[in-house]
Amino acid sequence: MKTEQIITEIKHQQADAAWITTPLNIFYFTGYLSDPHERLLALLIKADGTQVLFCPQLEVEEVKASPFTGEIIGYLDTENALDKYQFSANNLLVEAEHLTLKRQRELTAAFGVQQFNDIDATVKSLRNIKSADEIATIQKACELADKCIEIGVSYLSEGVTERQVVNHIENEIKAYGVHEMSFDTMVLFGDHAASPHGTPGDRKLQNNEFVLFDLGVIYNNYCSDMTRTVKFGTPNAKAQEIYDVVLKAETEAIAAIKPGVTISDVDHIARNIIAEAGYGEYFPHRLGHGLGLEEHEYQDVSSSNHNQFEAGMVITIEPGIYVPEVAGVRIEDDIVVTEDGHKIMTGYDK
Amino acid sequence: MKTEQIITEIKHQQADAAWITTPLNIFYFTGYLSDPHERLLALLIKADGTQVLFCPQLEVEEVKASPFTGEIIGYLDTENALDKYQFSANNLLVEAEHLTLKRQRELTAAFGVQQFNDIDATVKSLRNIKSADEIATIQKACELADKCIEIGVSYLSEGVTERQVVNHIENEIKAYGVHEMSFDTMVLFGDHAASPHGTPGDRKLQNNEFVLFDLGVIYNNYCSDMTRTVKFGTPNAKAQEIYDVVLKAETEAIAAIKPGVTISDVDHIARNIIAEAGYGEYFPHRLGHGLGLEEHEYQDVSSSNHNQFEAGMVITIEPGIYVPEVAGVRIEDDIVVTEDGHKIMTGYDK
Repeated sequence: MKTEQIITEIKHQQADAAWITTPLNIFYFTGYLSDPHERLLALLIKADGTQVLFCPQLEVEEVKASPFTGEIIGYLDTENALDKYQFSANNLLVEAEHLTLKRQRELTAAFGVQQFNDIDATVKSLRNIKSADEIATIQKACELADKCIEIGVSYLSEGVTERQVVNHIENEIKAYGVHEMSFDTMVLFGDHAASPHGTPGDRKLQNNEFVLFDLGVIYNNYCSDMTRTVKFGTPNAKAQEIYDVVLKAETEAIAAIKPGVTISDVDHIARNIIAEAGYGEYFPHRLGHGLGLEEHEYQDVSSSNHNQFEAGMVITIEPGIYVPEVAGVRIEDDIVVTEDGHKIMTGYDK
Repeated sequence: MKTEQIITEIKHQQADAAWITTPLNIFYFTGYLSDPHERLLALLIKADGTQVLFCPQLEVEEVKASPFTGEIIGYLDTENALDKYQFSANNLLVEAEHLTLKRQRELTAAFGVQQFNDIDATVKSLRNIKSADEIATIQKACELADKCIEIGVSYLSEGVTERQVVNHIENEIKAYGVHEMSFDTMVLFGDHAASPHGTPGDRKLQNNEFVLFDLGVIYNNYCSDMTRTVKFGTPNAKAQEIYDVVLKAETEAIAAIKPGVTISDVDHIARNIIAEAGYGEYFPHRLGHGLGLEEHEYQDVSSSNHNQFEAGMVITIEPGIYVPEVAGVRIEDDIVVTEDGHKIMTGYDK
């Protein structure tokens, strides 16, 4: 049961309960997904395993239809949700990375909480290791991302705009059952890709430049996230050289992934290849990140993360080189760490 | 200048500076819009008016291309952003509704902050009153929402699924320059609409039922949000009675809106009409909400909000009645409060 580690942590920290407020973490524990906007949505997990979900009254029917089996406290917009449940706690574990100062004050006022300790690391370590079901779902999301790239590449023609390619991909992929992308689809042409977080616009595709696609889909609430930089015609030698360096960095970094390997070592492999080719200053971001219910989640694949890879982790590897006025190239795959190595989940040609 | 009231508030609270972290509030003050995910994005506004934007290094070029003219502090994923700027503050105004416990600890560690006071109300009161430019932009978003309803209604036919209608609307509206909806488009048929936050699925449209559309578009970063419940054939008398009550409640509530009127009084007008018709328990949400950069923003139109309407406020009015197994009806318009009354910004037939 997913909450076992939470209960262990409650006891370890001599706390009374845990208070989960991140919508995706609530989904992870309850199977109920909702974006409550500014309204309160919270899961109380007590030391004895009891679970209580606080939600707006107008979501109560949806919660009842979800896999959640604990108590449901619905509240109207005119009510204070916390007043509707009799509870007191001296020491409460909260998500310090999600709980706001305002919500903290409300917990003190309603439940008499004096001490707030963190549950973040426990939840992260749970979500860090994906179950077989989660991996199968992400695999499907990756295959749909491959399909998006295929749709986008087949639509390229001289004069088409970045925005038109984005629209075409997002329209066509719906026929495959995709209702939501993981994030705003990015299609950038030539030197426009040299801004690593650029926005697709009315720039027209010219012959002999690279096209950068960075996209992902949400499938059954799980995300994919992949990047391909593909040739349209024959880009100039400098751009091609940049591409070759990025591909080498990506390939060698991925090859090193297996349980027990230190994450920062893999970042170094890619970073060294790029630095040795003279492009070190043009690779200004981490090598990758965790992937699952969020397109960016714990943990970082970066030079400052000295944890080790473990079987069940799903991460991206995405080195890039961005030389202003010249070219921007990034290549990104989604990888699952297996018992004896890794498997690349995204498959489009590189 | 939008930051004038912030500086006044800094002085009033004898603080050293304000620390803005909500991405849309940062956009409001700087013209730079970014979703930094888990990374830090923050705007420091000092008592002397100086502005400093902290952003990931890979966004620096985009910030330079934005209207923001202050100092930019870019940081790498491996760096602590706050360490890159020499600053100390005893009393810092923060967004208590956005700042997390973790970020609070970081501010204490880096800048020596001892006292955290709130800037939330000041920012809300600024955003509450829209400029003429903002109103014109929302008006355009409302016209595009009308167009979405028109597209959806013209696509209705026996056997079509809710999901197909959603996809059709979202595909077709792109031709009008819409790249993003304000929220997940909702199309619900017949009794499925009786769950006020239901999710469109494979339910097929039958003759003689109502179709509920709740949707909005984002136009130049501003949102619309409207609901129509339209007949497909001739719904039964009970459903039609519910529709008539909701329409009367909506019409009379809107008619009362003008500067100086207490917001809760307008909620009461709609709620009384629904209660007198015997459906009080089936209207479980507030009457409406503010609208602007967010589809739900300050302030609530509810029985607990005793503020008054002021010229320049943009709000929704959206009474609904949801009788399980029978029907769900909601009608929602976007309204701007004018000097001498109000203007309805959404126009599709009711």
